Amino acid sequence: MSAHADAAAGRARWIGFLSDYGLADGFVGICHGVVATLAPAVRMIDVCHEVPPGDLRRGAALLAQAAPYLPEGAVLLGVVEPMTGARRRGLVLQAGRSVLVGPDNGLLVPAARALGGVSAAYEITAAEVVRQPVSATFHGRDVFAPVAARLASGMAAAQVGAAVPLDDLVQLPEPVARLTAHRLEGEVLTVDRFGNVQTSLTAALLRDGGLCEGEALRLHCRAGEVRLPFSRGFGDVRDSDPVGYIDAVGLFTLALNGQPASARYDLRPGDPVALRLAER
Amino acid sequence: MSAHADAAAGRARWIGFLSDYGLADGFVGICHGVVATLAPAVRMIDVCHEVPPGDLRRGAALLAQAAPYLPEGAVLLGVVEPMTGARRRGLVLQAGRSVLVGPDNGLLVPAARALGGVSAAYEITAAEVVRQPVSATFHGRDVFAPVAARLASGMAAAQVGAAVPLDDLVQLPEPVARLTAHRLEGEVLTVDRFGNVQTSLTAALLRDGGLCEGEALRLHCRAGEVRLPFSRGFGDVRDSDPVGYIDAVGLFTLALNGQPASARYDLRPGDPVALRLAER
Amino acid sequence: MSAHADAAAGRARWIGFLSDYGLADGFVGICHGVVATLAPAVRMIDVCHEVPPGDLRRGAALLAQAAPYLPEGAVLLGVVEPMTGARRRGLVLQAGRSVLVGPDNGLLVPAARALGGVSAAYEITAAEVVRQPVSATFHGRDVFAPVAARLASGMAAAQVGAAVPLDDLVQLPEPVARLTAHRLEGEVLTVDRFGNVQTSLTAALLRDGGLCEGEALRLHCRAGEVRLPFSRGFGDVRDSDPVGYIDAVGLFTLALNGQPASARYDLRPGDPVALRLAER
Repeated sequence: MSAHADAAAGRARWIGFLSDYGLADGFVGICHGVVATLAPAVRMIDVCHEVPPGDLRRGAALLAQAAPYLPEGAVLLGVVEPMTGARRRGLVLQAGRSVLVGPDNGLLVPAARALGGVSAAYEITAAEVVRQPVSATFHGRDVFAPVAARLASGMAAAQVGAAVPLDDLVQLPEPVARLTAHRLEGEVLTVDRFGNVQTSLTAALLRDGGLCEGEALRLHCRAGEVRLPFSRGFGDVRDSDPVGYIDAVGLFTLALNGQPASARYDLRPGDPVALRLAER
Repeated sequence: MSAHADAAAGRARWIGFLSDYGLADGFVGICHGVVATLAPAVRMIDVCHEVPPGDLRRGAALLAQAAPYLPEGAVLLGVVEPMTGARRRGLVLQAGRSVLVGPDNGLLVPAARALGGVSAAYEITAAEVVRQPVSATFHGRDVFAPVAARLASGMAAAQVGAAVPLDDLVQLPEPVARLTAHRLEGEVLTVDRFGNVQTSLTAALLRDGGLCEGEALRLHCRAGEVRLPFSRGFGDVRDSDPVGYIDAVGLFTLALNGQPASARYDLRPGDPVALRLAER
Repeated sequence: MSAHADAAAGRARWIGFLSDYGLADGFVGICHGVVATLAPAVRMIDVCHEVPPGDLRRGAALLAQAAPYLPEGAVLLGVVEPMTGARRRGLVLQAGRSVLVGPDNGLLVPAARALGGVSAAYEITAAEVVRQPVSATFHGRDVFAPVAARLASGMAAAQVGAAVPLDDLVQLPEPVARLTAHRLEGEVLTVDRFGNVQTSLTAALLRDGGLCEGEALRLHCRAGEVRLPFSRGFGDVRDSDPVGYIDAVGLFTLALNGQPASARYDLRPGDPVALRLAER
C-alpha cells in the first residue's frame, strides 16, 4: 500500500528521527512540535540525537543500522551537518517503500542502501513544502521536519522539487573492508555505550576469508595482536576476556565480557583493524 | 476551536513538557505515566529535560523559544525549581489559546509572553485536580502533570483554583538589552550544544542601532574585542573564523564555523556583551 | 477489563520501557521501531534508559518506583544485563493486571512486587513470539520488545512458553533495612540527579522505631554522624543545611537544600546508613 493510501485511510504514519542536536537544548522538541502541528496523526521514533556534533560517519552508521527496524514505509528524517548553513542541497530520497529527508552530505545514503537502494532523489526547492521564512541556521525546524511531516501525511516525494541525478548525490567515503592475500582489512565503524567495537568487516567477508565460529582469531589493531575466540556472542568467555563475534547487524565486533573493549585496546571509529587469515 | 471542543470531539491534545529532571532518573517517565493514566488520548512532546538543576533562566529561555513551535493550543508543562518544596504557588497561566502549568517562580512567564502574553492566572488549590496525597517533594508527579493532563483533556483553567492578580506573579529579572549612545549592551542568554553563544540582543535592536548584515562588527566581551562579520548564518565564513548572525529565534548570536565559540571566548549565560555602533 | 478485551476494543495499550542502553546509540530507537512495526496502536513510555551498564540494583529500583504510576495494565519492558548473551531465561511475569518482560536476573521482581506480587511466570521459548533469527547479543530487539508488543496487543502471557515455578526466579539480594535495639540500619538505595540520597528505610520502619517528623535525627554514615531535622520536605531548612524526609515513594531520604548531599557525605548506592533511635 502506498504512503498516500495509508494517509487517505487515516492511518498514522511514522517518522524515524536522527540528529546531532543533543537533548540538552530544545532543538529536538521544536522539530517534534513542527511535525505535530503539520501532521498530528504522524508518530515519531527518536532513533538517536546524541550523534556527536557534525559526525556524519557515526550518524550515517546509526541511521543505516536502525532503518530496517522501523515500520515499513516510515519516513527517515536525518539532520547532521558539519557546517550548518553552508551551501548544500536539501534532499528527499526514495528507497523501497521508504523516503529519507535530510541534507545532501552523505548522511542518508547508507540508510537508503539498507532499505533497498536509492530509486529516486529530489532537491527540496518548492517554497510551499517548507516553513516560511526559512532561517539560515535551523533547517531541521524550517525545511526537513516540515517536509518529513508532509511526506508522512501522504505527499509524494516528487512534490518537493526537481529530480537529482543519482550519481550527483554526495557520498561519504566507503569504510575499508577487503580481503587480501593474508588478511581481512577493515576499520572500526562504531563504538557503543558498552565499549563494544563494531568493525566494517561483514559476516560474509569472514566467511569468504575462511574464518568460522569456534576458531581462534588473531586481530591486529593499534594495541598490537589480540588473540581471541570467534564466538557466537560474549556470554561464552570468562569475564574481561576478549571475544570476537558477528553482532546483531551482521558486523564483526570485538568485545570484552563486562568491560569496554574500546578502552583496553584504545580503539576509535576509523582506526584500522585486520584479521589474519588461517594458513592453509 | 476551544480546548473543550477539541476534547469533546475526541481529538488528542498536546502537552509540551520541560523540566530539570534529567533523563538518568525515572522522574520524566513517571510524569508521562501520570498523564497517560489520566488522559490517554493526550500526546506529549519532550521539549527538554536536561535543564541544569534549578536553572530558571535557562529553563525559561528554552521554554519560551520552543513555545511558538508547539501545536496551537498545546498545554505547556514546566517544572524547574531551585528549592523544591519551598513554599511557592502552583500556577496555571492562560496565554492566547495556550495554557501553561508550573511553579510561580518566573519559569513560565517568558513562554507565556511568546504566546501572546498572560491573560489570566490561577493558583492550583482545588484538591480534586491534583493527585492525592500530594507529596512534599515531587510536585511534577502529584500536582503539575495531573493538572496538565486535565487541561489537555478540556478542563477550563479556572477550575484549578482562585484567580491571581497578574502583577502578583513572580518574574525573573529581564535580561539586559539596551541601546546606549555608542553601544548595544546585552548579555549571553544561552549557549547551545555546538557552543553557539545566543545573546539577548534582538534583530530589532541591531536595526535600531544601525547595524546591518554585511557590515563588520566589533563585539566586546570578557575576552576583549572580537572583530567579526555580521552575516546571514555561519556558512559564509572560513572554518573557525568568528561570525555574528541573527539566529533562528531572532537573537544576535556569536559562533565559530565548526567550533564552540563559547569555549574560545570563555562566555557563559549572564556574561555581558556589547556591540559597538558604527561612527557616523 | 483484560488486556485482551482492551486490544479487541481497539484501545491502545501502553509499554513502559527501561534499559541500560543509553541514548547515545540507536538501541532504544530500534526497540521502539520493532514495537511500532508489530503493534502500531501501542504507545510507549520511556521510564529511563540511562541506567549505568549492567547496574541491576539501580534498574530494579527505578522500574519498581515508576511501576505504580504507569497506566493500569501496562506492559513493563525491562532490559538490563550485566553479561548479555550469557545463558539466562527470558521471562514474562504476571503481577496484578500488569505483565513484565525481561531477563531472569532479578531486574523485574521488585517492580512486580510493587504491582501486587508475581502471580505467574513464564519462560519465553515459543519461536513464533520472538523476532527470527534471534541474535546472540540484542535480545531487547529480537526477544523482549517483540514479546512486549504482542502482550500489549492482547496476547496472553502463557503464550510465550512454559510456566516457571515462582521460587525458581532469580532474585536480587534484598537491601538491608532493619530495626535493631538502638538503630535503624539500612543502605543507600539510589542517588538522583540532584544528589538526594534515598535509603532503604521505609516510612513504616521509621514509625516502628518511634522517629517522628519534627524530631532531630542522628544519621550515621561514612562521613560520621550527621545531625539533621526530620522534616516534611526540604523547603523547611536553610540553604545547604542537611534535612531528612520521607520522599515521594515513601523512603527516608537525606538531602541538602540546593546542593547534592551525595557529594558532601560521600554516599553511593549500597553504602550503609543508620538512624539512631531516641533514648527513652
